[in-house]
Amino acid sequence: MTERPLDVVGIGNAIVDVLAQSDEAFLAAKGLAKGSMTLIESEVADRIYAAMGAGVECSGGSAANTMVGVASLGGRAAFLGKVKNDQLGEVFMHDIRAVGVEFTTPPTTRGAGTARCLIMVTPDGQRTMATYLGAAVEFSEADVVSGTISSAAYTYLEGYLFDKPSAKAAFRKAVDLAHESDGKVALTLSDSFCVDRHRDDFLALIDHGVDVLFANEAEIKALYRTRTFDEALQAMRGRNLIAALTRSEAGSVIVKGEDIHVVEATKVARVVDTTGAGDLYASGFLHGLARGMTLAASARLAGFCAAEAIGHFGARPQGNLAKLAAGAGMT
Amino acid sequence: MTERPLDVVGIGNAIVDVLAQSDEAFLAAKGLAKGSMTLIESEVADRIYAAMGAGVECSGGSAANTMVGVASLGGRAAFLGKVKNDQLGEVFMHDIRAVGVEFTTPPTTRGAGTARCLIMVTPDGQRTMATYLGAAVEFSEADVVSGTISSAAYTYLEGYLFDKPSAKAAFRKAVDLAHESDGKVALTLSDSFCVDRHRDDFLALIDHGVDVLFANEAEIKALYRTRTFDEALQAMRGRNLIAALTRSEAGSVIVKGEDIHVVEATKVARVVDTTGAGDLYASGFLHGLARGMTLAASARLAGFCAAEAIGHFGARPQGNLAKLAAGAGMT
Repeated sequence: MTERPLDVVGIGNAIVDVLAQSDEAFLAAKGLAKGSMTLIESEVADRIYAAMGAGVECSGGSAANTMVGVASLGGRAAFLGKVKNDQLGEVFMHDIRAVGVEFTTPPTTRGAGTARCLIMVTPDGQRTMATYLGAAVEFSEADVVSGTISSAAYTYLEGYLFDKPSAKAAFRKAVDLAHESDGKVALTLSDSFCVDRHRDDFLALIDHGVDVLFANEAEIKALYRTRTFDEALQAMRGRNLIAALTRSEAGSVIVKGEDIHVVEATKVARVVDTTGAGDLYASGFLHGLARGMTLAASARLAGFCAAEAIGHFGARPQGNLAKLAAGAGMT
Repeated sequence: MTERPLDVVGIGNAIVDVLAQSDEAFLAAKGLAKGSMTLIESEVADRIYAAMGAGVECSGGSAANTMVGVASLGGRAAFLGKVKNDQLGEVFMHDIRAVGVEFTTPPTTRGAGTARCLIMVTPDGQRTMATYLGAAVEFSEADVVSGTISSAAYTYLEGYLFDKPSAKAAFRKAVDLAHESDGKVALTLSDSFCVDRHRDDFLALIDHGVDVLFANEAEIKALYRTRTFDEALQAMRGRNLIAALTRSEAGSVIVKGEDIHVVEATKVARVVDTTGAGDLYASGFLHGLARGMTLAASARLAGFCAAEAIGHFGARPQGNLAKLAAGAGMT
């Protein structure tokens, strides 16, 4: 692959996160499955927000967080996603551009407001999310800018976008544009419930041309309907793609054809909030691949970035990942 | 004083904070005096925000933070201040009510948006603020609800509000209402530049009927135009009010008539961000007074609350202050 203007372009939901401390009783009362993401309508969002504790707002969105991580690692990243031209949309655009991610998707000027993700963090550091997609559902094929896709080494797709029919068409267009320009396509399954909802579409997209697949244990088991992680792992072997399978504190397993790497997790002094751990894992892995690092070295860098996210409240890196990773001998 | 439905009602600017890491060169380039608060217009706010790093949004406002601290200590608090009915206004109203502070001031429905304070935190933990007041300037005498003032043991006034002529009238009304119902009036000078701007009005208000005065070293020196802290301290002696004079890591000095207490600061393991330290100092002191604690014990509780704010990013308490203070033997 020749040097390109962009290392990675991410496509995903443009969301502002609202984080608040919570407990299990609250999740049960609101019917939210702990550790997962539930899509909610405007009225439900209002109801949950009214009952939540005082929060902190910060820009989020899974693929957007990943792109911020790539930029923090010194990579060249772009993001495609939809906000409205309201206050939270302004916050989202400011924050992603402030760290050097290219973001040019025009905001909508009418209809629902910028997407919000209500994140309830339980004392064990786990996060449970309720997302009101708002303006993010307006993202369509027209927003998949061919010049951006063709200038990137990797096009990274967020599985959550599969919850919107118009986004599925946008994804297929992105895959085709990437391959036409000899770029690679990466996909994250995002959430096991999301996989349950769109299993056939995910399998079809993977066959259609995914080069790098990100999934955690629950997601890969949901995709192949296996009982154990090992069964899902065997299902990935011998295929013409790279699978990066994450297992929280058990580290990650990388599969490429018959090649398998089992990589330890980076130790975390104190688990504060796991929000963003998967997102920043993807940052490290994609950045490593784009910069020609080996699979194992990329997975170690990925785990290092995930650990940074776990050590603080919020999904985006607080430190300069490039410096931190260099200091730790990761790059 | 008989038991009242409210311990404290605060009157101040209803603001959403935008916090971002920064450095001294940035402050110099933007013409901002380190450690102080500068009032800015809409266009300047846009320019500074565009140049700032990625941020975190959380509800703020000095007196509002203080009321949140009182509620976190288990006190009964209310707040009067003005937001617009926009997204940031919704965030402000949610957060202050979520911790149990009564907030009923009707939002404006037209004109400028909810106030924003751009807070640049330098590596030494100092915060420099640029505030766009927006809808907060609409606060007027009509918003000083007599029933709320008369039901509170203390009415707490934020000096920053002096930057708006209509708010000065509102302050005088609040002082008169409080005294008519045998309530006490507390005032914070807020900022030395604010004192420079409105020195005569502050002196007149203090004479008109302030029972508890909060000021840091720079503010009290600005008020009495003295060269040293000790000269200002002597100017406070023999007066018919309580002065709580804060000195950062040197603790605080309480003056009441001829009575003087010098109270050590609570040790802070690591200074993360001093935003909110003064605000939460006032929470602890007012809560202590309202609950009949001695001056010295109230000052120690105040210092304890300030230390909690300094240990994390953001102005409002992250823990339950009532539990933390009880655990530390402060209450």
